[in-house]
Amino acid sequence: MEFFFFPGSTYTWLSVMRIEALAALRGVPVRWRPFNVRAIMQEMDNRFLQGKPLKYRYMWRDIERRAALHGLDWNGPPEHPVDRNLEALRVATLAAAEGWGPEFARASFEDWFTHHRSPGVGGHTAQVIGRLGRDASAILARAEAPENLARIEAETDAARQVGIFGSPSFVVGEELFWGDDRLEAALDWARRPTLPTPMPPI
Amino acid sequence: MEFFFFPGSTYTWLSVMRIEALAALRGVPVRWRPFNVRAIMQEMDNRFLQGKPLKYRYMWRDIERRAALHGLDWNGPPEHPVDRNLEALRVATLAAAEGWGPEFARASFEDWFTHHRSPGVGGHTAQVIGRLGRDASAILARAEAPENLARIEAETDAARQVGIFGSPSFVVGEELFWGDDRLEAALDWARRPTLPTPMPPI
Repeated sequence: MEFFFFPGSTYTWLSVMRIEALAALRGVPVRWRPFNVRAIMQEMDNRFLQGKPLKYRYMWRDIERRAALHGLDWNGPPEHPVDRNLEALRVATLAAAEGWGPEFARASFEDWFTHHRSPGVGGHTAQVIGRLGRDASAILARAEAPENLARIEAETDAARQVGIFGSPSFVVGEELFWGDDRLEAALDWARRPTLPTPMPPI
Repeated sequence: MEFFFFPGSTYTWLSVMRIEALAALRGVPVRWRPFNVRAIMQEMDNRFLQGKPLKYRYMWRDIERRAALHGLDWNGPPEHPVDRNLEALRVATLAAAEGWGPEFARASFEDWFTHHRSPGVGGHTAQVIGRLGRDASAILARAEAPENLARIEAETDAARQVGIFGSPSFVVGEELFWGDDRLEAALDWARRPTLPTPMPPI
């Protein structure tokens, strides 16, 4: 299963914390694929939350309830939006390419949600990398390299190709699932499709 | 539990078909409250689907998958948007006030989703009322009466007061749940709140 996610997406916290255990239970391999959901949402004029204080209030309460449902510690609403300059996305993309993607994503989301240190600002990304025992300055340099920036474009294009419009999204073949509350359904689909018909083409 | 719904809302089909059985299992009384979600979404500039073909395509597939999950027959995507002149909303509101609200709502959604007869056009609403063994012309007249139009405004205001921004919504005291995929959580909350803290005020 393909796990498309953005390091600054709120509900994505729930999936980043849950997906490894739930996928392991089902024996479903997961490919972690960071992408630039912000670019796609801007292309769609998909202003999910901007200017909608009632939806914001609801979102944080819903995430709090879902965290309790799943046994995750909730420390109150963190800052949002975050990673405005996409630093965390660049590092998450590099990490995914170098084989430590899940490790970095979990650490970055934990820093944001548990400790309220927003990703992509104030040296937080470097601190997260350091806590993982890696060379932050070398990694931040590689994250800025054209090769890595091209990876972000390619992964965001891959998300566009399957019709992704938000984070988190889960893809099994052509079948798209959007939102942490569809994670279990996506994993079940990966084991066995639950409908005989294919997903309609874009 | 308060069940706020709009007769022309797509995901609301799932809740209208499921809520009675699930509430009965838990012994939770449900008050069916039609309201004008369209007015609220326009006030919020909440354009959930307009101009977003990828989200439309996804929504229908997601509803198809959820219908299969819950054992509901799916007949393919019906027309949408519907009830543009709010005729079905006016009758649903009258029916709720007269004690046959759930009966009408189920019949109207079945007509729309199962038989692809869109609510609020082509005499469909009158036909639905007739199939319920009621006097369509008398009911349509009462539905247009100022008293009933005032009910719609009052119920829509009640939805605004609790911060509702979409349909279906479920309210237990101050606690708001949005979306058919939160129906079970809302019913569980009605039996016993699952968080100690209250929902933040608007």
